Amino acid sequence: MSARGEFPNVSETVTQASIDAYAELSGDFNPLHVDPVAAAASEFGGIIAHGPIALHAFLRAATDWLGVEALPPGSRVAVTYRAPTRPGDTIGCALTGAADADPLEAACVSQDGTTVVTVRATLP
Amino acid sequence: MSARGEFPNVSETVTQASIDAYAELSGDFNPLHVDPVAAAASEFGGIIAHGPIALHAFLRAATDWLGVEALPPGSRVAVTYRAPTRPGDTIGCALTGAADADPLEAACVSQDGTTVVTVRATLP
Repeated sequence: MSARGEFPNVSETVTQASIDAYAELSGDFNPLHVDPVAAAASEFGGIIAHGPIALHAFLRAATDWLGVEALPPGSRVAVTYRAPTRPGDTIGCALTGAADADPLEAACVSQDGTTVVTVRATLP
Repeated sequence: MSARGEFPNVSETVTQASIDAYAELSGDFNPLHVDPVAAAASEFGGIIAHGPIALHAFLRAATDWLGVEALPPGSRVAVTYRAPTRPGDTIGCALTGAADADPLEAACVSQDGTTVVTVRATLP
């Protein structure tokens, strides 16, 4: 909607420090997230971030865009995980549909062009 | 599905420490999350957690249930935020539909019976 202005261009760089912090707060210390040796031996070939970390750029952009401090009750955010996110990746988020669409459609894309997460959101 | 066994009963207590950690890692230092005085003066009447924190119990239960280390690519998790979560709340998560439904339906409920988040998830 034009009243909301342009969807902001927010990007986030994923770091091992933020993955470690997420492990602490979520209680998810899976070796895929915190043990480089075990992660290297896994099918992923190295550390991957917890899924919700890839979503931070979208959440920041959406709250900025709505001009709210937090997503209001009734907000619905549907996330499809497409590819792993790794330490060092920079994730940017952009709308892939119209700014007045409902649901709003967005994609979070890493610096090498990989879509890591797609989002469909209904925001009050 | 019976092969998956019973959906695990996981609960998480939300603390100011985990909210502070989430602020650090997400970059979202909104006063609603980290400033008790400003939050008390807001419409929420006190500190509220970042939305994704209410989802941790579901994510832990789902990965345990699937017997996977992380939600696999193609997983789709649709979250509707229903009510704020506050420090001290204990959030439990249970299926609200059949264990073989697709999407799987679940609700995350606080200790006082308030549904804070509902989830519809398609898990490969």
